[in-house]
Amino acid sequence: MRVLITGVAGFLGSHLADRLLAEGHEVVGLDNFVSGKAENFAHLIGNDKFTFIRHDVSNYIHVPGKVDAVMHFASPASPNPKSPIGYPNLPIQTMKAGALGTHNTLGLALANNARFMLASTSEIYGDPQEHPQKESYWGHVDPISERSVYDEAKRFAEALTMAYHRFHGVNSVIVRIFNTYGPRMHTDDGRAVANFIQQALEGEELTIYGDGQQTRSFCYVDDLIDGIYKLLMSKEHYPVNIGNPEEITIEQFAIEIDALIGKSAGLTYLKEMRFSGDPQRRQPDISRAKEVLKWEPQISLKDGLTKTIDYFKADSK
Amino acid sequence: MRVLITGVAGFLGSHLADRLLAEGHEVVGLDNFVSGKAENFAHLIGNDKFTFIRHDVSNYIHVPGKVDAVMHFASPASPNPKSPIGYPNLPIQTMKAGALGTHNTLGLALANNARFMLASTSEIYGDPQEHPQKESYWGHVDPISERSVYDEAKRFAEALTMAYHRFHGVNSVIVRIFNTYGPRMHTDDGRAVANFIQQALEGEELTIYGDGQQTRSFCYVDDLIDGIYKLLMSKEHYPVNIGNPEEITIEQFAIEIDALIGKSAGLTYLKEMRFSGDPQRRQPDISRAKEVLKWEPQISLKDGLTKTIDYFKADSK
Repeated sequence: MRVLITGVAGFLGSHLADRLLAEGHEVVGLDNFVSGKAENFAHLIGNDKFTFIRHDVSNYIHVPGKVDAVMHFASPASPNPKSPIGYPNLPIQTMKAGALGTHNTLGLALANNARFMLASTSEIYGDPQEHPQKESYWGHVDPISERSVYDEAKRFAEALTMAYHRFHGVNSVIVRIFNTYGPRMHTDDGRAVANFIQQALEGEELTIYGDGQQTRSFCYVDDLIDGIYKLLMSKEHYPVNIGNPEEITIEQFAIEIDALIGKSAGLTYLKEMRFSGDPQRRQPDISRAKEVLKWEPQISLKDGLTKTIDYFKADSK
Repeated sequence: MRVLITGVAGFLGSHLADRLLAEGHEVVGLDNFVSGKAENFAHLIGNDKFTFIRHDVSNYIHVPGKVDAVMHFASPASPNPKSPIGYPNLPIQTMKAGALGTHNTLGLALANNARFMLASTSEIYGDPQEHPQKESYWGHVDPISERSVYDEAKRFAEALTMAYHRFHGVNSVIVRIFNTYGPRMHTDDGRAVANFIQQALEGEELTIYGDGQQTRSFCYVDDLIDGIYKLLMSKEHYPVNIGNPEEITIEQFAIEIDALIGKSAGLTYLKEMRFSGDPQRRQPDISRAKEVLKWEPQISLKDGLTKTIDYFKADSK
C-alpha cells in the first residue's frame, strides 16, 4: 500500500511511518512543523519507500500518484497552556487542522478511493461523566472553553468523517487515541510523564499537583501503533478506542519513575492546578478493540518507562 | 452601519435584513440558494441600501468596501430527513457552512475590525439532560449520529468564534437560536408547526406522532429578530439564548392551529417517530437575555400563528 500520513513529524505520525515501512508499505509524509520535529523522521530520509512533503493540511493537498490509504494525524495535541506548541496557544491552527485538514484529507481519500483513518482522541469525551469510556458515550465538552478548540475540532472531524462515509461511501474509520507515552513524545509537554522524568533526571523534586490520587491511563507508543495498524487493516468504520485501560495514580507514576532513575530529591505535593475542562479521570473501555482487532496492550509500564527515560536522556544531550 | 448577512435568502436572514434596513442600516446579503429562496428578499431588490451577492460562504468571501458588522446566518437548518434541504440530506454542505463559512466570515470581520455575530442554535445542547437550558450547559450531543452534522458544525463554529475573540480580539458574539416560526419559514420543513398548518388548510387530519405530550417552545420570528438586533447592538461576547421559554405540548399546538383555521378533519395520533438525537424536550432559559438585553418575547401564540397561517395561505397560491 501507498499510505499518506499527515503529521508525520509528530510523536505518533513518525512511529506510524516506521511501522508501515517495516510492514513493507510505501509512506508519503506531510508536515508543516508547527508542532512536529524533523528529527522524528530524519532516520527515514534516503529510504526509497519514504517521501516527505512540507505542507499545511489546512490548505488544499496535492499528492502526485495514487494513494491507497490516508491517515490524518496532523494537529497540535498538547493541552499545556504554558507550552508554545500547546493547543491553547495555537487555537486557530488547531481548529483548522481538525476541520479544514479533515475536509482536505477526506477529499483526497474520496478522489483516490482510499482507506481513510481519522486520528481522534479521548478528548472528545471531555470531562467524562462515565468511567471507563465506551465508544458509545457522547462525551461532556464545554463548547466555548479555551480547551474546546481541540475537543470541538476533533468532534467536528469525527462528524465530517462519518458524513463522508455515509454520503460518499468513503472507506473511513476513526481511532480515539488515549494518553500515550514513549520515545519522541514532547519532553516539555507539561504533563505528568514528561515532567517527572525531566525532574528525576535533573535530581530535582518530582512535583505532584494535589494529593496525587487522580488517575491516568497511559499507553506505551508501540502498543498504540500496533492497535492503529490493526485498525487500518480492518474493515471497521465506527470509532474504536485505543489506549491502555490500566489506571494508575499520578503518585504511583512518580514513584515508578523515581525508582527507575534513582536520583531524584523525592516527591513534593503542590496545590492542585487545573485549567477549564481538564479531566480528573479518563480511562478507555477497550472491549471493542479486543473484539474487533484482537488487540490489547502488551508492554509493561516498567519496560515502557525504561525506553522512554532512555529517550529523554538522549534528547537532553 | 454597513452589515453583511450570510444566508440572507433564508427565513431568519431575510427578516434580519428587513429589520436592519428599517433601522436605517445598509445591508449586504450573501446566499447560494442551497436552502434559501430568492422570494424571501425579492421585495428588497431596488432598495439603495441593499446589495445582494450570490456566493457560497464555504469559499473565500470578498465584499467590496468596509463592513461594520458580519452576521453569519448561512446554513441548512431543517432536521427533516425527508426534505431535500434538510441537513441530513446536505451533510457536507452543512458542515462546510458551519466550519469553513464561520472561518471565512470571522476572517472578514477581523480584516474589517467589525462586530461579528454567529447564528448558533439550541441544537448545540443536543438531547439535553437539563431543563430549561442555560447558556452554561455543555450539551449532550452524539458526535457521530446523522443529526450531528448540524450540531457539531455549530459547536465547532462557537469554539472558533471564541478562539477568534480570545486570540485576535474579534468583537464577536454568539446567539443560540431556539425553535422559531413565522412567515417565510419552510412550509415543508416536516416539523410540527408547518405540518399542522398545511394539514389544517387542506382539511386533512392533523397528525400527532406519539401521545402529543412532548413539548416544544416556539418563538415568533419578530420577537426573535428583536432579540438578535439588541444582541448585535450590545457589548456582549458570550453566548445568549434567544427563544420563547413558554412550553406547549404538540397536542396543544395542534388544537390552537385547528381552532384558528377551523376546517380540519380533527386530530389523529400515529406511532411516535424519532430519529437519532431528536430531542424529546428543549426549552430556553432566557435569564441572560432578560438581564443583558432587557429582552423577552412579546407576541402571543395566537397572533403569531395567525400571521403564519396567512403566509402559508399566500404561499400555497
